[in-house]
Amino acid sequence: MANEENVVFVGGKPFMNYVTAVVMQFTTKGVKEVTIKARGKFIARAVDVAEVTTKRFLKDQGVSVKDIKIDSEEFENKEGNKVNVSTIEIVLAKK
Amino acid sequence: MANEENVVFVGGKPFMNYVTAVVMQFTTKGVKEVTIKARGKFIARAVDVAEVTTKRFLKDQGVSVKDIKIDSEEFENKEGNKVNVSTIEIVLAKK
Repeated sequence: MANEENVVFVGGKPFMNYVTAVVMQFTTKGVKEVTIKARGKFIARAVDVAEVTTKRFLKDQGVSVKDIKIDSEEFENKEGNKVNVSTIEIVLAKK
Repeated sequence: MANEENVVFVGGKPFMNYVTAVVMQFTTKGVKEVTIKARGKFIARAVDVAEVTTKRFLKDQGVSVKDIKIDSEEFENKEGNKVNVSTIEIVLAKK
Protein backbone atom coordinates (compact mmCIF):
# COMPACT_ATOMS: atom_id res chain seq x y z
CA MET A 1 0.00 0.00 0.00
CA ALA A 2 1.70 3.19 1.15
CA ASN A 3 5.47 3.18 0.69
CA GLU A 4 7.66 3.70 3.75
CA GLU A 5 8.15 7.41 3.14
CA ASN A 6 4.45 8.06 3.62
CA VAL A 7 4.25 6.40 7.02
CA VAL A 8 4.07 8.31 10.31
CA PHE A 9 4.70 6.04 13.30
CA VAL A 10 3.08 7.46 16.44
CA GLY A 11 4.86 6.97 19.79
CA GLY A 12 5.84 8.96 22.85
CA LYS A 13 7.07 12.22 21.30
CA PRO A 14 5.08 15.46 21.69
CA PHE A 15 1.67 15.16 20.03
CA MET A 16 2.14 18.04 17.60
CA ASN A 17 5.28 16.41 16.15
CA TYR A 18 3.06 13.76 14.60
CA VAL A 19 0.39 16.19 13.47
CA THR A 20 3.03 18.35 11.80
CA ALA A 21 4.64 15.31 10.15
CA VAL A 22 1.31 14.26 8.61
CA VAL A 23 0.37 17.79 7.52
CA MET A 24 3.81 18.32 5.94
CA GLN A 25 3.53 15.12 3.89
CA PHE A 26 0.35 16.39 2.27
CA THR A 27 1.26 20.06 1.93
CA THR A 28 5.02 20.27 1.34
CA LYS A 29 5.72 16.86 -0.16
CA GLY A 30 2.42 16.71 -2.03
CA VAL A 31 1.71 13.03 -1.42
CA LYS A 32 -1.81 11.62 -1.96
CA GLU A 33 -1.79 9.17 0.95
CA VAL A 34 -0.27 9.02 4.42
CA THR A 35 -0.48 6.02 6.74
CA ILE A 36 -0.49 6.62 10.50
CA LYS A 37 0.69 3.57 12.45
CA ALA A 38 0.81 2.82 16.17
CA ARG A 39 1.01 -0.05 18.63
CA GLY A 40 -0.40 -0.70 22.11
CA LYS A 41 -1.24 2.33 24.21
CA PHE A 42 -0.25 4.69 21.39
CA ILE A 43 -3.25 3.55 19.32
CA ALA A 44 -5.50 6.14 21.00
CA ARG A 45 -2.93 8.78 20.10
CA ALA A 46 -2.82 7.71 16.46
CA VAL A 47 -6.59 8.22 16.30
CA ASP A 48 -6.15 11.69 17.85
CA VAL A 49 -3.52 12.53 15.21
CA ALA A 50 -5.85 11.39 12.43
CA GLU A 51 -8.79 13.37 13.83
CA VAL A 52 -6.83 16.60 14.42
CA THR A 53 -5.12 16.54 11.02
CA THR A 54 -8.23 15.75 9.00
CA LYS A 55 -10.71 17.91 10.92
CA ARG A 56 -8.57 20.90 11.88
CA PHE A 57 -5.53 21.25 9.63
CA LEU A 58 -6.35 19.54 6.35
CA LYS A 59 -10.11 19.87 6.17
CA ASP A 60 -10.01 22.37 3.30
CA GLN A 61 -7.52 20.23 1.41
CA GLY A 62 -9.95 17.35 1.04
CA VAL A 63 -7.97 14.94 3.19
CA SER A 64 -10.03 12.29 4.96
CA VAL A 65 -9.80 8.81 6.46
CA LYS A 66 -9.75 6.27 3.65
CA ASP A 67 -9.15 3.04 5.53
CA ILE A 68 -8.49 1.71 9.03
CA LYS A 69 -6.98 -1.67 9.83
CA ILE A 70 -6.28 -3.30 13.17
CA ASP A 71 -4.05 -6.29 13.81
CA SER A 72 -1.88 -7.95 16.47
CA GLU A 73 1.84 -8.57 16.69
CA GLU A 74 3.52 -11.13 18.91
CA PHE A 75 6.81 -10.22 20.53
CA GLU A 76 9.02 -11.43 23.35
CA ASN A 77 9.25 -9.18 26.40
CA LYS A 78 12.26 -8.72 28.69
CA GLU A 79 11.25 -11.76 30.75
CA GLY A 80 11.20 -13.91 27.61
CA ASN A 81 7.41 -14.32 27.53
CA LYS A 82 5.44 -14.06 24.34
CA VAL A 83 3.13 -11.07 24.44
CA ASN A 84 0.56 -9.86 21.96
CA VAL A 85 0.24 -6.19 21.17
CA SER A 86 -2.52 -4.63 19.05
CA THR A 87 -1.66 -2.41 16.12
CA ILE A 88 -3.54 0.14 14.02
CA GLU A 89 -3.02 1.57 10.55
CA ILE A 90 -5.03 4.63 9.55
CA VAL A 91 -4.77 5.62 5.90
CA LEU A 92 -5.48 9.28 5.15
CA ALA A 93 -6.03 10.21 1.52
CA LYS A 94 -6.47 13.36 -0.49
CA LYS A 95 -9.38 13.40 -2.92
CA MET B 1 -26.49 0.29 12.19
CA ALA B 2 -26.24 -1.91 15.28
CA ASN B 3 -29.05 -1.47 17.75
CA GLU B 4 -28.15 -0.50 21.32
CA GLU B 5 -28.29 -4.09 22.61
CA ASN B 6 -25.40 -5.06 20.36
CA VAL B 7 -23.06 -2.34 21.60
CA VAL B 8 -20.24 -2.97 24.07
CA PHE B 9 -18.84 0.28 25.45
CA VAL B 10 -15.23 -0.18 26.60
CA GLY B 11 -14.05 1.74 29.69
CA GLY B 12 -12.11 1.14 32.88
CA LYS B 13 -13.55 -2.20 34.05
CA PRO B 14 -11.42 -5.38 33.96
CA PHE B 15 -10.43 -6.24 30.40
CA MET B 16 -12.03 -9.68 30.34
CA ASN B 17 -15.45 -8.19 31.20
CA TYR B 18 -15.56 -6.65 27.73
CA VAL B 19 -14.20 -9.72 25.98
CA THR B 20 -16.82 -11.87 27.71
CA ALA B 21 -19.58 -9.40 26.85
CA VAL B 22 -18.69 -9.52 23.15
CA VAL B 23 -18.29 -13.29 23.06
CA MET B 24 -21.63 -13.79 24.85
CA GLN B 25 -23.45 -11.61 22.33
CA PHE B 26 -22.34 -13.87 19.49
CA THR B 27 -22.59 -17.22 21.27
CA THR B 28 -25.48 -17.03 23.76
CA LYS B 29 -27.59 -14.30 22.16
CA GLY B 30 -26.80 -15.36 18.62
CA VAL B 31 -26.48 -11.86 17.16
CA LYS B 32 -24.80 -11.32 13.80
CA GLU B 33 -23.07 -8.04 14.61
CA VAL B 34 -21.57 -6.43 17.70
CA THR B 35 -20.20 -2.88 17.84
CA ILE B 36 -17.36 -2.11 20.24
CA LYS B 37 -17.22 1.58 21.15
CA ALA B 38 -14.69 3.62 23.15
CA ARG B 39 -13.49 7.15 23.72
CA GLY B 40 -10.11 8.76 24.48
CA LYS B 41 -7.52 6.57 26.14
CA PHE B 42 -9.87 3.56 26.07
CA ILE B 43 -9.58 3.38 22.27
CA ALA B 44 -6.43 1.24 22.52
CA ARG B 45 -8.36 -1.09 24.81
CA ALA B 46 -11.28 -1.37 22.38
CA VAL B 47 -8.80 -2.52 19.72
CA ASP B 48 -7.40 -5.10 22.17
CA VAL B 49 -10.94 -6.37 22.85
CA ALA B 50 -11.63 -6.70 19.12
CA GLU B 51 -8.33 -8.51 18.49
CA VAL B 52 -8.67 -10.94 21.41
CA THR B 53 -12.30 -11.80 20.66
CA THR B 54 -11.85 -12.32 16.91
CA LYS B 55 -8.44 -14.03 17.00
CA ARG B 56 -8.66 -16.08 20.18
CA PHE B 57 -12.27 -16.69 21.20
CA LEU B 58 -14.40 -16.43 18.08
CA LYS B 59 -11.98 -17.41 15.34
CA ASP B 60 -13.74 -20.72 14.65
CA GLN B 61 -17.13 -19.00 14.60
CA GLY B 62 -16.25 -16.88 11.58
CA VAL B 63 -16.38 -13.57 13.44
CA SER B 64 -14.17 -10.84 12.04
CA VAL B 65 -13.78 -7.06 11.85
CA LYS B 66 -16.30 -5.72 9.36
CA ASP B 67 -15.84 -1.98 9.75
CA ILE B 68 -13.93 0.58 11.80
CA LYS B 69 -14.90 4.23 12.16
CA ILE B 70 -13.18 7.03 14.04
CA ASP B 71 -14.69 10.38 14.98
CA SER B 72 -14.46 13.20 17.55
CA GLU B 73 -16.86 14.45 20.18
CA GLU B 74 -16.78 17.87 21.79
CA PHE B 75 -17.62 18.14 25.46
CA GLU B 76 -17.21 20.64 28.28
CA ASN B 77 -14.78 19.68 31.04
CA LYS B 78 -15.05 20.57 34.73
CA GLU B 79 -13.34 23.93 34.11
CA GLY B 80 -15.96 24.81 31.48
CA ASN B 81 -13.57 24.52 28.52
CA LYS B 82 -14.57 22.81 25.32
CA VAL B 83 -12.45 19.71 24.76
CA ASN B 84 -12.38 17.28 21.86
CA VAL B 85 -12.13 13.58 22.46
CA SER B 86 -11.60 10.96 19.76
CA THR B 87 -13.95 8.00 19.46
CA ILE B 88 -13.81 4.61 17.77
CA GLU B 89 -16.46 2.15 16.63
CA ILE B 90 -15.36 -1.34 15.67
CA VAL B 91 -18.05 -3.51 14.08
CA LEU B 92 -17.53 -7.25 14.40
CA ALA B 93 -19.67 -9.49 12.21
CA LYS B 94 -20.34 -13.18 11.84
CA LYS B 95 -20.19 -14.57 8.32
